[in-house]
Amino acid sequence: MKKSEPLGNDNNGNPIPQDVFEVTSELIEEISHALRENNYEQLDYLLAPLHSSDIAIIFEQLREDERNDLTSYFGSQLNPEVLTELEDTALDQVIKEMDADHVVEAISQLESDDAVDILEDIDLEDRNRIIAALPDEERLAVEEGLSYPEDSAGRMVQKNIITVPGSWTVGQVIQFLRTEEELPPEFYEIFIVDPLHHPIGTVSLSQLIRTRDSVPVSEIMDTDPKVVPVDLDQEEVAYMFRQYDLTSMGVVDEDGRLLGMITVDDVVDVIDEEAEEDILRMAGVQETDITESIFEASKNRIVWLLVNLATAILASMVIAMFDGSIEQMVALAILMPIVASMGGNAGTQTMTVTVRSLATKDLTESNVHRVVGKEFAIAILNGVVLAVIIGLLSLAYFDNPLLGGVIAAAMIINMVMAGLAGILIPVGLDRVNIDPALASSIFVTTITDVIGFFAFLGLASVVLI
Amino acid sequence: MKKSEPLGNDNNGNPIPQDVFEVTSELIEEISHALRENNYEQLDYLLAPLHSSDIAIIFEQLREDERNDLTSYFGSQLNPEVLTELEDTALDQVIKEMDADHVVEAISQLESDDAVDILEDIDLEDRNRIIAALPDEERLAVEEGLSYPEDSAGRMVQKNIITVPGSWTVGQVIQFLRTEEELPPEFYEIFIVDPLHHPIGTVSLSQLIRTRDSVPVSEIMDTDPKVVPVDLDQEEVAYMFRQYDLTSMGVVDEDGRLLGMITVDDVVDVIDEEAEEDILRMAGVQETDITESIFEASKNRIVWLLVNLATAILASMVIAMFDGSIEQMVALAILMPIVASMGGNAGTQTMTVTVRSLATKDLTESNVHRVVGKEFAIAILNGVVLAVIIGLLSLAYFDNPLLGGVIAAAMIINMVMAGLAGILIPVGLDRVNIDPALASSIFVTTITDVIGFFAFLGLASVVLI
Repeated sequence: MKKSEPLGNDNNGNPIPQDVFEVTSELIEEISHALRENNYEQLDYLLAPLHSSDIAIIFEQLREDERNDLTSYFGSQLNPEVLTELEDTALDQVIKEMDADHVVEAISQLESDDAVDILEDIDLEDRNRIIAALPDEERLAVEEGLSYPEDSAGRMVQKNIITVPGSWTVGQVIQFLRTEEELPPEFYEIFIVDPLHHPIGTVSLSQLIRTRDSVPVSEIMDTDPKVVPVDLDQEEVAYMFRQYDLTSMGVVDEDGRLLGMITVDDVVDVIDEEAEEDILRMAGVQETDITESIFEASKNRIVWLLVNLATAILASMVIAMFDGSIEQMVALAILMPIVASMGGNAGTQTMTVTVRSLATKDLTESNVHRVVGKEFAIAILNGVVLAVIIGLLSLAYFDNPLLGGVIAAAMIINMVMAGLAGILIPVGLDRVNIDPALASSIFVTTITDVIGFFAFLGLASVVLI
Repeated sequence: MKKSEPLGNDNNGNPIPQDVFEVTSELIEEISHALRENNYEQLDYLLAPLHSSDIAIIFEQLREDERNDLTSYFGSQLNPEVLTELEDTALDQVIKEMDADHVVEAISQLESDDAVDILEDIDLEDRNRIIAALPDEERLAVEEGLSYPEDSAGRMVQKNIITVPGSWTVGQVIQFLRTEEELPPEFYEIFIVDPLHHPIGTVSLSQLIRTRDSVPVSEIMDTDPKVVPVDLDQEEVAYMFRQYDLTSMGVVDEDGRLLGMITVDDVVDVIDEEAEEDILRMAGVQETDITESIFEASKNRIVWLLVNLATAILASMVIAMFDGSIEQMVALAILMPIVASMGGNAGTQTMTVTVRSLATKDLTESNVHRVVGKEFAIAILNGVVLAVIIGLLSLAYFDNPLLGGVIAAAMIINMVMAGLAGILIPVGLDRVNIDPALASSIFVTTITDVIGFFAFLGLASVVLI
């Protein structure tokens, strides 16, 4: 929630659409140059017009030493909003470089959800030190936020919301909004609550503003406001916003009392984060960011590579079972990776569609049987096409019809296994509450490698050798 | 933009948080049963309380014949909002099943951006027939929307917005909002324009509502409203919303005149769509949805499989170059897939991080050199770890120190190639304006397969044979 600072307008005083993306490589270069020269005047000139989100990008794009210099340049003048936009590694570094007092002051200026967002991402030691130094009211709000599970609605709650009783008229609400000092910086709806603070309705500002003063808000309110329990996973919160086209939504405690609201700008970040997490996990990469160090990144990735090494060795053991056959017919060694690799690709296709369908709740118990049948049919169709092609090519190249037949049969077997593994493994993992994006691909490719080598070399040993 | 219909409340009249997800498998089953029995009373009971978004989900989850039955059940009573939420295949089917008159009536009731959203997704023939039958004003708005490039800001523009001159006071604006009949159903800010309709500022409703009536809007407006040109790609529009935490944003034509606005609910869909597109493309799947037929799905995937078949054959040709060596030492056939497979996994990790970093604009010209250096270092680090492990295992199993050395060296070579390919290929494709998500993985895995087999078998031929 922020208001943008003034920026370049054209000669007629109109905003220039071309400055849509303000942080260019040239700008970064100029800032980096000004930092090296300690040219504070130039830095003022370059940085003053920028939105806090753009300043965050500049922090992330700079080298580590430049990032520290920029932190010193800002000193206590750093807009707290910049911190809310920084990725973890850069945030940690900036917080460490800032004066302790400035950090506390910056964080106490933020809405509670933004403060929680920053504090949950930084080193535990820094976090505890900062929280202890916060003013009482902020501290309690932050501690409450952090008491909810990571990635739950509770972590995203903005406590500062507008609640009014249903008996109030539109005029009374507007009068209240005009006189109340501690309003949230930006809001889209007001919440109507009963005496026990249960939400009984919401009125959007656009509805409020166009209704006559004398009308009670209870007459214009949406009587079925969507609310979420405070411990709901953020992925489900995002699903609600997307599904019902919301801009803000109430969050309730276990007794159904209104605790605060979640706004769409935070949900946009969650949607992005969750999609990114799925993409990265399917490729075996942990949560990462561009400012991460080489050792962290290397450590993050080696785990997955070691798991894959184990499965690659497993596949090799299958090959080793047939070493006699390969010695007699080296064509088998030449062709065997094709069967395994095509199975891997087909399995990955099905698995990816399945993981996404699960994430978007398109794949449910109602249709899973139908979708499994469909994937089976697709696997046979595509398997036959590929089998015919590779069978004919093998026949042509090795002049051996039996070899062509063996590789065609192995291809169909492996494609069908790939299709079934591609859907059944993620669905099965999802049922036992393991993130299908994280673990599916290792199982799927292990199966397609093992079955691919086994089917091809096994059939060949029986038929050809 | 929709208001939710009343739903189940608990005994105290409070909304029940547990009904967060209303479309359960049981509900689908009951609806499906009621459809089979033509039990319209039961359908009324089950469907009346549901939000249009939930009804859309039910359409998607049903079988094709049930979907047609449900369309007939609704007849002309189908809420047009349901159509805006349907995925392509289901939408096409429902539109074909509906009476032509009902379709035209439904679409003419929607905001222009929603109408465009539906029309761009359906068969060209249906589209033209419907557009021709729309009332003049709607028709022109829809035709204008469809005249902009697919996936551009122009397709998402809602033309119905609030514009006022800067000389107006807050009181005048509120008075206008209360008397004007043709307001957008939901809006979050008003646009201040000059006489030529250039946007010179925006005022959020929460700001407007808490300001005294006598204040001119020009005094409280944000004088640097973010606007986008009408031909900007939707991905860039989504980036703006995310970067600047917006809820709505003006869209201008090439002369900088305000055409309308884009609202965050549509952007949420775009973010989802674009992330999904990246995930699916990296796995070689075209845009897809759960209601797609087997033949379409099979056709969508076979192209990628054929491309992969070609690269698998290329890798086999590399193996065939060394058939003599394999005949002499079958251990090579057993070990060679390990080198290729580890390279493929490492390359995919780097490639995925790179594709995401490009999509989120974290990877730019300013830092690409640094990031390439970092990936090189990670590749060497992890390559050495894996080389030591696989070298020792090979030594232990085959009791051949030279073989252990050869596979270790080949592993390091392939890991480094994988790391470099994983970053340079997506960056290169991005430079020449090819979507890196679409084409990277085929190049990366081809390189890691070819280099993996060549390095291992080539070194082995020189050193061991």
